[in-house]
Amino acid sequence: MQAAPELTVSQWFNSNQPLTLRELRGKVVVIEAFQMLCPGCVSHGLPQAVRIAALFPADRVTVLGLHTVFEHHAAMTPVSLEAFIHEYQLSFPIGVDEAGPGSVPKTMAAYGLQGTPSLLIIDQDGLLRANHFGQVPDLQAGAEIASLLSHGTHQEQRELSKEGDPENCGEDGCPVPTPAQET
Amino acid sequence: MQAAPELTVSQWFNSNQPLTLRELRGKVVVIEAFQMLCPGCVSHGLPQAVRIAALFPADRVTVLGLHTVFEHHAAMTPVSLEAFIHEYQLSFPIGVDEAGPGSVPKTMAAYGLQGTPSLLIIDQDGLLRANHFGQVPDLQAGAEIASLLSHGTHQEQRELSKEGDPENCGEDGCPVPTPAQET
Amino acid sequence: MQAAPELTVSQWFNSNQPLTLRELRGKVVVIEAFQMLCPGCVSHGLPQAVRIAALFPADRVTVLGLHTVFEHHAAMTPVSLEAFIHEYQLSFPIGVDEAGPGSVPKTMAAYGLQGTPSLLIIDQDGLLRANHFGQVPDLQAGAEIASLLSHGTHQEQRELSKEGDPENCGEDGCPVPTPAQET
Amino acid sequence: MQAAPELTVSQWFNSNQPLTLRELRGKVVVIEAFQMLCPGCVSHGLPQAVRIAALFPADRVTVLGLHTVFEHHAAMTPVSLEAFIHEYQLSFPIGVDEAGPGSVPKTMAAYGLQGTPSLLIIDQDGLLRANHFGQVPDLQAGAEIASLLSHGTHQEQRELSKEGDPENCGEDGCPVPTPAQET
Repeated sequence: MQAAPELTVSQWFNSNQPLTLRELRGKVVVIEAFQMLCPGCVSHGLPQAVRIAALFPADRVTVLGLHTVFEHHAAMTPVSLEAFIHEYQLSFPIGVDEAGPGSVPKTMAAYGLQGTPSLLIIDQDGLLRANHFGQVPDLQAGAEIASLLSHGTHQEQRELSKEGDPENCGEDGCPVPTPAQET
Repeated sequence: MQAAPELTVSQWFNSNQPLTLRELRGKVVVIEAFQMLCPGCVSHGLPQAVRIAALFPADRVTVLGLHTVFEHHAAMTPVSLEAFIHEYQLSFPIGVDEAGPGSVPKTMAAYGLQGTPSLLIIDQDGLLRANHFGQVPDLQAGAEIASLLSHGTHQEQRELSKEGDPENCGEDGCPVPTPAQET
Repeated sequence: MQAAPELTVSQWFNSNQPLTLRELRGKVVVIEAFQMLCPGCVSHGLPQAVRIAALFPADRVTVLGLHTVFEHHAAMTPVSLEAFIHEYQLSFPIGVDEAGPGSVPKTMAAYGLQGTPSLLIIDQDGLLRANHFGQVPDLQAGAEIASLLSHGTHQEQRELSKEGDPENCGEDGCPVPTPAQET
Repeated sequence: MQAAPELTVSQWFNSNQPLTLRELRGKVVVIEAFQMLCPGCVSHGLPQAVRIAALFPADRVTVLGLHTVFEHHAAMTPVSLEAFIHEYQLSFPIGVDEAGPGSVPKTMAAYGLQGTPSLLIIDQDGLLRANHFGQVPDLQAGAEIASLLSHGTHQEQRELSKEGDPENCGEDGCPVPTPAQET
């Protein structure tokens, strides 16, 4: 299992401050990677993300959008995205994936996404547990998220059995404990 | 019944030349007025236009899109529209409604559209026969179009009963007969 | 074009009296041939019939159901059909196609139906204009019905051009003019 | 939490032998309580049960149908149900809830079901964890089932912490360990 690469975002919508996966440790993080002009994202991916955000309690599951534009860059600028978010009444935080050296933006490249929509599920310890390209049935998405909620954090389990928690500092650094973390 | 105002279009996609209602006389013209970031247009209006174009013979029914942007102008530029058309694989001609003095573009104002999506149906004589705002059931759209096809053009009927056809020159000028005209 | 064979019905629901195509002359008649345990009938055919009945004026278009059981006869008796009609809140007249010598009932055999659902469209003169097996798009169904409404009856056209109307007596007899007939 | 009442079934389809909840201990059991002429069961409840059976591994989740007829008894006999199961291609075991003294059948009464469709979810210890009347979103159904799978059986947890397992004999008797039980 891979530690989920940190988000590299140039601009956030629906959030007063930049968000990082590190600060979201302790919660399950569901990321809907999309492009505003991708038909499958509009018809399936984003509505599913809305349903996920509505079903699961916000203090245990955070839903984020990630605008991973890898084509038609001039057509999907932040100005257009802002109107899109307004018209589609999306209320969860949405980050603009930072432009990379090529056409693929940085976070998209770090996760090796195959395209959009992609549904990423990150557990309470920051491990990437699912990276689905295309349409995911609701039944499966619900099961995968709930499975992580039920297990509790890996860290909790480690805390029960070990002195100290050296593994708490993983490949992607050492997280600062936050109030959102389930302990 | 109102003569359908001529289109005022600043740019065409999917057409090598500007299109006018005058030149389309003799055919039923179905216009889908939409905005690319209007959810109801994406989910209902445009897919219905695609189905109409697929069902009716092209030599009798012409389907046109009209991009009537009346909000978020900076977000729905022709550059963005072009990518939208590409991604949604729309193949019928789509005109950009020319900007007006206010936020409402010129053709939209001339037709007094209530918003998007709007489905306009124009008969073979250039008369506006339907101006529907919002979602129109397929059954009704199919019935309205077929009803015009069955009646034949008013002009045909006039030709059967009158000498000359002075009414052929209407409010919007005298049409040049074209090969597409049903006579 | 074939004259539509008369219905052979053993029992009617949602009608105080037996119905015949002959008495319905002058109106377009839409028949949804179905079996209550046929999944495509339940999901597509019957809901479409309900929409047709709701859209078109009842004095010009009559919608009928025809229960054409050709398999599982013991499972789809009139007792079961009555509960089905109640639960699915079908309000148009529904006839039970009379059992034939084999498994296929009589009206179904007379029309040579390929299976269920089948959508039959009969014009104002009693001619069978469409016999569709399977799913028919709403756009097409609406167009086909409206096309007949617009043309008016063949009889009207004949009356305009001929003395007498010998063709008025067709393969299936001579219709008695009725008040519902469009003249 | 209530121990799930045992099923009282007069006839099984899609199963060579009668099934009991007791024998299914160790697995999550999902029961779709339906009536074959209930529109919501046909359009939502049963298709969801089919999806659940397809998604979750059969050795951990058992999906059962329960035909709980409480109205139109003469219309929904086992003969009709058998044809229904055939036509809708349902392959999971389906039991006919045994007729009770009144119109409500016995298992339906024991569970106090509000109507059909009802989705019942029983955990590995035979406890009734969910009793949903009406339409349940797939996202929620998936989450609820997965949550039980992740927790493991209560019994397992008890075994980890206690000598003996007196609670293993519950309100509804003492289960005989079976090969299907997860230990």
